[in-house]
Amino acid sequence: MSIKPTILVTNDDGINAPGIRALISVMAEIGEVIVVAPDSPQSAMGHAITINSTIYLNKISGENTAITEYSCSGTPVDCVKLAVNEILKKKPDLCVSGVNHGSNSSINVIYSGTMSAAVEAGIEGIPAIGFSLLDYDWNADFEQIKPYIKKIALEVLAKKLTEGTVLNVNFPKLKTNEIKGIKICRQAKAIWMEKFDKRQTPYGKDYYWLTGEFVNQDKGEDTDEWALAHGYISIVPVQFDLTAHHAIAQLNTWNL
Amino acid sequence: MSIKPTILVTNDDGINAPGIRALISVMAEIGEVIVVAPDSPQSAMGHAITINSTIYLNKISGENTAITEYSCSGTPVDCVKLAVNEILKKKPDLCVSGVNHGSNSSINVIYSGTMSAAVEAGIEGIPAIGFSLLDYDWNADFEQIKPYIKKIALEVLAKKLTEGTVLNVNFPKLKTNEIKGIKICRQAKAIWMEKFDKRQTPYGKDYYWLTGEFVNQDKGEDTDEWALAHGYISIVPVQFDLTAHHAIAQLNTWNL
Repeated sequence: MSIKPTILVTNDDGINAPGIRALISVMAEIGEVIVVAPDSPQSAMGHAITINSTIYLNKISGENTAITEYSCSGTPVDCVKLAVNEILKKKPDLCVSGVNHGSNSSINVIYSGTMSAAVEAGIEGIPAIGFSLLDYDWNADFEQIKPYIKKIALEVLAKKLTEGTVLNVNFPKLKTNEIKGIKICRQAKAIWMEKFDKRQTPYGKDYYWLTGEFVNQDKGEDTDEWALAHGYISIVPVQFDLTAHHAIAQLNTWNL
Repeated sequence: MSIKPTILVTNDDGINAPGIRALISVMAEIGEVIVVAPDSPQSAMGHAITINSTIYLNKISGENTAITEYSCSGTPVDCVKLAVNEILKKKPDLCVSGVNHGSNSSINVIYSGTMSAAVEAGIEGIPAIGFSLLDYDWNADFEQIKPYIKKIALEVLAKKLTEGTVLNVNFPKLKTNEIKGIKICRQAKAIWMEKFDKRQTPYGKDYYWLTGEFVNQDKGEDTDEWALAHGYISIVPVQFDLTAHHAIAQLNTWNL
């Protein structure tokens, strides 16, 4: 009899989001699941951590009472830190984050709370995957991608991820049988063109809403944007050594 | 007569921090300075952006009235986006962030609001540098490092940074004449060993403070940690293409 793997599940849309509920249901088929997720939406929190404020952790009963769930007042990264250090007191065999309601492909990876939670797990030496579906709707259909989530998670458990890497998995908004397959990709060179929506409070004070348009400037066919646009699931291996090793030689020629 | 470069200055410790005041004074010797910085401390905010809340921007008078300053209710990354899109309406020639009160070397780069502001500028195609001093004291002595800040900023303006990179500059807590020089480095493989300080509210509810111990597991002599420990200023070129390109071949052998 094999021992079931311990799987930590988190996200950034909050513990009640349909995306994390779908992820929990798949992980419950694979291992012993523990959920530690934000008590409120934490989208676009990047790799923020809570150092100037207190953090609350509440044990709650899940839909499935066999699964232990905690909601946390902190960021997605705080959730991973608390899970590993205060709740589990040992490293889980896998950490999965998501399923995010919306894309975390290309440059979105850097703003994403979902991916930052996975990256934090990676920093702590835990195999980790962030999952995102290209559908921002709260009632997005996560059933279609469940078979793929299971396949990818099992493969990560069976094989080892390259040291210092985690996976960024994005799903196109398609039916299971419309998905063409999985492509291993690089992050596309894309940016957000910001448009600030300037308004006035009822008291005459200006304020802004951040909005923007996503622009993919990358024509490569090996990118996550290309794969998603052509009906594939994209997997980008993501690293947290941010050193631009290729730029070191040039800087060494500078007059510093 | 040459035209002065436009320099955007931001930080994460807030617009009144002595670190940004020191940085502004150096940049005023080099170019036309515009300051857009958080109205309150935003340390450890990582690459967070404000999408579920309003953002306020207040034009304030600086110490030096020749310099335009804005305080912003958002994160460091919001400050850069607002500066470029709403205030300047064109890209500045340089963006500098800091001087941070405390280290942003090795893995700290990923949690740092200071560095995330510089990275955001880099994403927008602006040459960018984050500066940090290894002294968490509010009254840290920034005078000692001013000559080096000027030298590095001038070199970045004179030469081009490799596309898709920004600089992470950390200063040891030393007198000007004790600093041995500048080293171009890679990010050390170091982590934070978390220790949560668990307490109770006056009403009997548990809460946590995130604390931790920094542990450098990297014995390399080409790292930022090594340079700083040996009296050098460290410069790490940082990239925002997070793709672990070296891991793609292995993933392509998986059964996906």
